[in-house]
Amino acid sequence: MSVFRYEALEVFLRQQIQTGRYKVGEKLPSVRTLCQQHELSKATVIHALHKLEADQLIYAVPKSGYFVAEVSSDYNTPQKVPTPSIPAQVNVPDLFRDIMSRSAAFDILPSDRSTATAQHLINLNRMIGKASRFHPEQKAHYYDEPKGLVRLRSAIVDLYRQRETSLAAEDLCITSGCQHALFLALMATCQKGDTVAIESPAFYGALQQLEQLGLHVIEISSDPNTGLDLQELADKIQDWPIKACIVTPNFHTPTGSKMPVSNMKALVKLANQHDFYVIEDDIYGELSFHNELCPPLKSVCREGRVILCGSFSKCLSRELRIGWIAGGLLHDKIVQLKLITQLANPQAVQEGLAEFISQGHFKRYVNQRRQQLKEQRDQLIAELRQHWGAHIKFSKPNGGMSCWLELPSHIDTQQSYKALLEKGIVLTPGVLFSAHGLYKNHMRLSFSQPLTERRRAALHLLFQTLLKDQ
Amino acid sequence: MSVFRYEALEVFLRQQIQTGRYKVGEKLPSVRTLCQQHELSKATVIHALHKLEADQLIYAVPKSGYFVAEVSSDYNTPQKVPTPSIPAQVNVPDLFRDIMSRSAAFDILPSDRSTATAQHLINLNRMIGKASRFHPEQKAHYYDEPKGLVRLRSAIVDLYRQRETSLAAEDLCITSGCQHALFLALMATCQKGDTVAIESPAFYGALQQLEQLGLHVIEISSDPNTGLDLQELADKIQDWPIKACIVTPNFHTPTGSKMPVSNMKALVKLANQHDFYVIEDDIYGELSFHNELCPPLKSVCREGRVILCGSFSKCLSRELRIGWIAGGLLHDKIVQLKLITQLANPQAVQEGLAEFISQGHFKRYVNQRRQQLKEQRDQLIAELRQHWGAHIKFSKPNGGMSCWLELPSHIDTQQSYKALLEKGIVLTPGVLFSAHGLYKNHMRLSFSQPLTERRRAALHLLFQTLLKDQ
Repeated sequence: MSVFRYEALEVFLRQQIQTGRYKVGEKLPSVRTLCQQHELSKATVIHALHKLEADQLIYAVPKSGYFVAEVSSDYNTPQKVPTPSIPAQVNVPDLFRDIMSRSAAFDILPSDRSTATAQHLINLNRMIGKASRFHPEQKAHYYDEPKGLVRLRSAIVDLYRQRETSLAAEDLCITSGCQHALFLALMATCQKGDTVAIESPAFYGALQQLEQLGLHVIEISSDPNTGLDLQELADKIQDWPIKACIVTPNFHTPTGSKMPVSNMKALVKLANQHDFYVIEDDIYGELSFHNELCPPLKSVCREGRVILCGSFSKCLSRELRIGWIAGGLLHDKIVQLKLITQLANPQAVQEGLAEFISQGHFKRYVNQRRQQLKEQRDQLIAELRQHWGAHIKFSKPNGGMSCWLELPSHIDTQQSYKALLEKGIVLTPGVLFSAHGLYKNHMRLSFSQPLTERRRAALHLLFQTLLKDQ
Repeated sequence: MSVFRYEALEVFLRQQIQTGRYKVGEKLPSVRTLCQQHELSKATVIHALHKLEADQLIYAVPKSGYFVAEVSSDYNTPQKVPTPSIPAQVNVPDLFRDIMSRSAAFDILPSDRSTATAQHLINLNRMIGKASRFHPEQKAHYYDEPKGLVRLRSAIVDLYRQRETSLAAEDLCITSGCQHALFLALMATCQKGDTVAIESPAFYGALQQLEQLGLHVIEISSDPNTGLDLQELADKIQDWPIKACIVTPNFHTPTGSKMPVSNMKALVKLANQHDFYVIEDDIYGELSFHNELCPPLKSVCREGRVILCGSFSKCLSRELRIGWIAGGLLHDKIVQLKLITQLANPQAVQEGLAEFISQGHFKRYVNQRRQQLKEQRDQLIAELRQHWGAHIKFSKPNGGMSCWLELPSHIDTQQSYKALLEKGIVLTPGVLFSAHGLYKNHMRLSFSQPLTERRRAALHLLFQTLLKDQ
């Protein structure tokens, strides 16, 4: 494969996109067409496309092709931060536990109690209520099946089928949310003292689990756009063999990064070569702002190396306490661990939820929610750019519900946490997302709620407090 | 203290009870009165009472006195079985997992689908439904407090206050059932490879947990009436130091044994002396057939050595998936483990349940249930005595929902499991309840359901199959 030939195509396509010849969301010509037009081999064309995908100029939709991603050249993305070369044991200070429990709500302010109730929750409650009135004596006397209600598992299988992922109902096990699923995955893959690789910045819920299970963590630098740096992972595991790697390929919290499909494939290859498991946190998987839903990492793994974890907490309701796990090679072990950790899940909730999904209510709601989150992201980004664009850098995620902010290097976001809390504002400082105390001048900012005047005012107060010594 | 003096009082009271001078449920004279009447010291009188309590002729109600227990001299109780002197790793065969998942329903037959719905479940569902309609958006966006809803914790505190146990709401943490609570207690007290003491026979759910966590188990012979043999525990932990001891002081499954208060105190003393934790499974605590509710082990421990675990699954509904844990010295650690294992519980279920308890519905229902279970126990015992009294021995528990059967020594209850399952009957073989393969000729039999003609026929078929080679 000639370096020059693929580079020429890469430059050509990049120009076409940047000059608007291909619009955002538009499909690029097929690989076959590009081969013919440019007289290139298939491998060369794919190499060029992978380069553009890694730069987030385009994104792949399996079995469909490549599409033009939203251009994000008019703002500053936070820099990838170098990470220490050795593992650490996690040690979460008590203050952080307080912040973590507040930050799980993903909002700088408590919600307005007067908000009108969304119709989808009324429907969902009605279906769960109906299920709970059906043979309540039976439900009171019998636990559900060990893997959870088969009808709900089939409904989840259908959701994944729409994301190019082939699963069977028996490949899945219902859990009490994604945290429970991640816990089971760590219990199944690791023993105390083992080392686990994580994206840096990392989801703090995973860091807490690694702490409590006595696991060591090696942080892998992650790009706010494309996620885990695979080369760094490959280098570090030479020195520090790992048992598992936790990743959120689709719309990672805090950065919102999306792992390109080519990186997904490379990660699975690495896992097979070095005999570790990949624990995929897919909790934001349904919350894509692309025209097409993004397939999970699980979709590119045939060997059962990927343990897929998900939940309805972020895309529907935290109140359900329903998640799932597809454990691949370790599935039987994981089902046993589910049984010993909590035996069963409520049957009526599973029945009502299965009905809600199979009647199409879930798809309708989640499509609305994706649109709403995308608009709220745009509101937030516009606000940041207009008022603090000179001082802060921020990611512009194409899914999920938060973006990642980098402030001037002398600012310590954690220092302002208490003062802001007294004013009723919850700041989520960057240090929460590292086992090594990185990200002192970073923070997570959520767009899960509309940017009302109340939130806009809170945002101004937040940045005035943070930047006051500028 | 003279041996003869306490023995004389013990013999005197034993005769008075056996000749009917004191009736079942009647209060004995107070310690002070007995001292005066018999001209004995307080210590001597208490010694005599403890002997009678250990023999289950009387039972203690703290701050009230001693009451005459039901006499059970007219039937054969299963013998206490000697246990191996060394610990073992648990290794649950796959067939057992199948049996365990079926036996969790505590019934030899599936329930009759046509059973009319109990009013208490309609009330409970109504209250949960009402709570779920209150601010559903809030519930969808926010998790509950780390320890669970404070109102529900306060309601559980009130239930324990009626059982002579002083707790505060912050001493409790809500879990997803008792299995989840026991798991957290084991995670908090033990590391892989540690040794845990259990009653023998033991609850199979605990055995599964010990297996999955890689813990060693030392079985302690237990009396079908009075539970754990404290002398044997004291002897064995000299050779095999333990980190925890799991006990069900009130109405153990499978035997239905109830630990005398004097043994409870001795167990706590032993735990303090030898630096181990006692994990109390109180899931049957509310299901006492005595006139008074029985206090938990927790009530006699001031040092925080007892980790109290309970649930509404057996006394109200398995569908709720709501339990609790009071972790004593380890409570903060346990709350962290709860958060990493599953983050949160549904708020509406907790709110509805708190309302159900505070309106008095729970007490009313559980009192009915206790009466109902007592009658069902009597039906079952009468049936056993009438038809198989010559061949089998059985415990007669004063609470809970199952009794323990000893069959002739050449019978292997596990061998008939598959044949009976093909006939639609679920046999719970004794081997499930041991890590060392004990109890081949034992089985658990539940009285959780009324002895209908269908169940009576199933019972006959079961024993005919088991005893056919007699």
